[in-house]
Amino acid sequence: MSLSRIPATLFRAIPHNRLSPKLFFSASFQAPLRSLATVGSISNQTKPKGGGTAIVFLNMGGPSTVSEVHNFLSRLFADGDLIPLGPFQKYLGPLIARRRTPKIEHQYSVIGGGSPIRRWSELQASEACKILDTIHPSTAPHKPYVAFRYADPLTEDTFAKIIEDGVTRAVAFTQYPQYSCSTTGSSLNELWKLSKKMDPNGTIEWSVIDRWPTHPGFVDVIARHVEDTLATYPEEKRDDVVLLFSAHSLPMSVVNRGDPYPAEVAATVHAVMGRLGFRNPYRLVWQSQVGPSPWLGAQTSNTVQNYVKKGQTDLVLIPIAFTSDHIETLHELDLEIIGEMKQPGIKRAESLNGDPKFIEALADIAKQHLKSGDLCSRQLSLRCPMCVSARCQEQKIFLDTKGEGVKSRVCMNLDHNCRTLMWRPGL
Amino acid sequence: MSLSRIPATLFRAIPHNRLSPKLFFSASFQAPLRSLATVGSISNQTKPKGGGTAIVFLNMGGPSTVSEVHNFLSRLFADGDLIPLGPFQKYLGPLIARRRTPKIEHQYSVIGGGSPIRRWSELQASEACKILDTIHPSTAPHKPYVAFRYADPLTEDTFAKIIEDGVTRAVAFTQYPQYSCSTTGSSLNELWKLSKKMDPNGTIEWSVIDRWPTHPGFVDVIARHVEDTLATYPEEKRDDVVLLFSAHSLPMSVVNRGDPYPAEVAATVHAVMGRLGFRNPYRLVWQSQVGPSPWLGAQTSNTVQNYVKKGQTDLVLIPIAFTSDHIETLHELDLEIIGEMKQPGIKRAESLNGDPKFIEALADIAKQHLKSGDLCSRQLSLRCPMCVSARCQEQKIFLDTKGEGVKSRVCMNLDHNCRTLMWRPGL
Repeated sequence: MSLSRIPATLFRAIPHNRLSPKLFFSASFQAPLRSLATVGSISNQTKPKGGGTAIVFLNMGGPSTVSEVHNFLSRLFADGDLIPLGPFQKYLGPLIARRRTPKIEHQYSVIGGGSPIRRWSELQASEACKILDTIHPSTAPHKPYVAFRYADPLTEDTFAKIIEDGVTRAVAFTQYPQYSCSTTGSSLNELWKLSKKMDPNGTIEWSVIDRWPTHPGFVDVIARHVEDTLATYPEEKRDDVVLLFSAHSLPMSVVNRGDPYPAEVAATVHAVMGRLGFRNPYRLVWQSQVGPSPWLGAQTSNTVQNYVKKGQTDLVLIPIAFTSDHIETLHELDLEIIGEMKQPGIKRAESLNGDPKFIEALADIAKQHLKSGDLCSRQLSLRCPMCVSARCQEQKIFLDTKGEGVKSRVCMNLDHNCRTLMWRPGL
Repeated sequence: MSLSRIPATLFRAIPHNRLSPKLFFSASFQAPLRSLATVGSISNQTKPKGGGTAIVFLNMGGPSTVSEVHNFLSRLFADGDLIPLGPFQKYLGPLIARRRTPKIEHQYSVIGGGSPIRRWSELQASEACKILDTIHPSTAPHKPYVAFRYADPLTEDTFAKIIEDGVTRAVAFTQYPQYSCSTTGSSLNELWKLSKKMDPNGTIEWSVIDRWPTHPGFVDVIARHVEDTLATYPEEKRDDVVLLFSAHSLPMSVVNRGDPYPAEVAATVHAVMGRLGFRNPYRLVWQSQVGPSPWLGAQTSNTVQNYVKKGQTDLVLIPIAFTSDHIETLHELDLEIIGEMKQPGIKRAESLNGDPKFIEALADIAKQHLKSGDLCSRQLSLRCPMCVSARCQEQKIFLDTKGEGVKSRVCMNLDHNCRTLMWRPGL
């Protein structure tokens, strides 16, 4: 039963202890299905207990200064959710991080000495919260937080601040519009691990905005940025410009495991093209492949090179899976791909960054979530079909002691490495 | 400039010879860009010359009887667009076809002695034409034809019939909702080759419906078939049933070349889930992988097995890229995957087949196309970025003699093996 459709009459029947936020995180919690579902469903029924609502923007982050690059890369390559390096991750990760540091330091120095993602994220979060106070006063005041996975402000530090601020209701709001176990999944796992450590009594009641690939406001802003770029071409050429929507690629091992990201990115692209009236030919292409293992293509760089070879020199590159500029737009797209082609007809649509309409869209996404009473989307409750995580195996054995019924339901409803058991509704 | 937006004033300025249908197919045609665009644009301006409008349903087809299986497989494995076997295709194709025949003959005998795709296609085409006569009388009478790529009625025989019937206006209407160079591209290439041979003077004026992945009527019928299947589960379990949208997979070599199919299938899935209100968890999975080379996953069969292993035994399989039942639904899904799991909770949503609402949707798609005046979609005009076809290379050299401008534009606007030059608008 989906949380968003639990009849109001149910709430009145819930004993007070059932409402304890502790239920969200206690790993030893064994309540029957309906209880947890009901607990999840009351997220927006309980008025914020004075402390208002924390809106926590989750993202990978980036080094704000060149000196942060090595730490950033070390955390990045240590994360098997993002870059699966197998059983030797803990040895290979630091090695790769160390070897790549000088090159990446150079890239950040070239784009101005650091990533702007922190500046944009903090602006987006604080402005979205101001709008939320107006459009959804019942959960006000809304307090903006940014929690990065690999750079400052790290999730751990942000979590400490949330506790210090006495927050009792928080929304984990992914800033990856399309869900992947590698990105949003990794951030949620981190948050869950920390919550067990830093908030063992579950004083904070959490819910999750885990994806928003086709939110109309989000789609409209991207379409407008494409139109702004198309307007810079002579009118007679405009409809023949080829649009290349570029998203960060995934290893085929993750795609073939059943990760929902490629399909959600494609949904965003189709929605944007619909908004643009399908006036231009287009392709969805994939960037930033690393290492020797096969990744999802067509590759952005090869696509641009091949189109230019074939004589198509009017191309607009559109970042479709990031909410602000960072190394993949400012260096990879602008300098490596566009810069090196030296073709005036190859341009990039502006990133979302501080666009006020995008910030309005973020506020609307949060408002819809707070209104819905959902703990998270139905999709987050479904584990990837080909998950082979060892942790999941352990979790299954642990759950097996609670009987086949629970085992099967719980295991179906964990993220791909079984560390977000308590995030999900419907258990 | 998109054909659909050429101002009417342009038509009056076009000398009669520019309107000659010959232009659509003459390989030596060298008219400047605007002319061909204009020719393309008049498809629905010219009233059908007495003969009405042929609506030609394109599909891969299937053997209607077991005795047709070998010929069907021979044609299938000879088609490098569908199954790329490299330079040895002409030797490997017949070999594989011969070796697979007994197994596939058995499969067709098990599902009732043949594929129902011809019966359904002929019904869909004739019923859609009746509706078209009512909703778009200006191009009536609409005459239904079915042209299969690998089985009777073969495209060649249907083409002969179209000529024999004195048709001068025809719409090639793909029955693959999502475009792939392997499927719709292959059918269009076949049609173009035949037109050069069988209609060298281009007496038939053609236009193309090359994709319709998110047509609301199409999406609504799939959603309704899903709802009908969900209604067979107890109400308390209904929202926890996992929906598995299953489409025919593609080799990664085709995906990485930039084939638009995976993104268009994902767009269909997202549209159907939107229509269903995202009530159930779901995945897009891929079926029918053949041979040792890597194909796009997650695989349908592995997904079902793994979910059952994990305890999720309520699954609905939804064919998302076929318009009627055939071997991949009746044998692969129903018998091999669902049958062998022996789980009453694993079911399949009904295929589109003869659903009157689906046939209404087909008629509406054709009506919109006839009204638009488009030769084809803007997407058909864009070649896959990583195309490495030898025929394309030859075509480029040929076109090079016509000057850089033409060369580049034309090469950009051929399908991946450059055999549909005259199909496209905007040259």
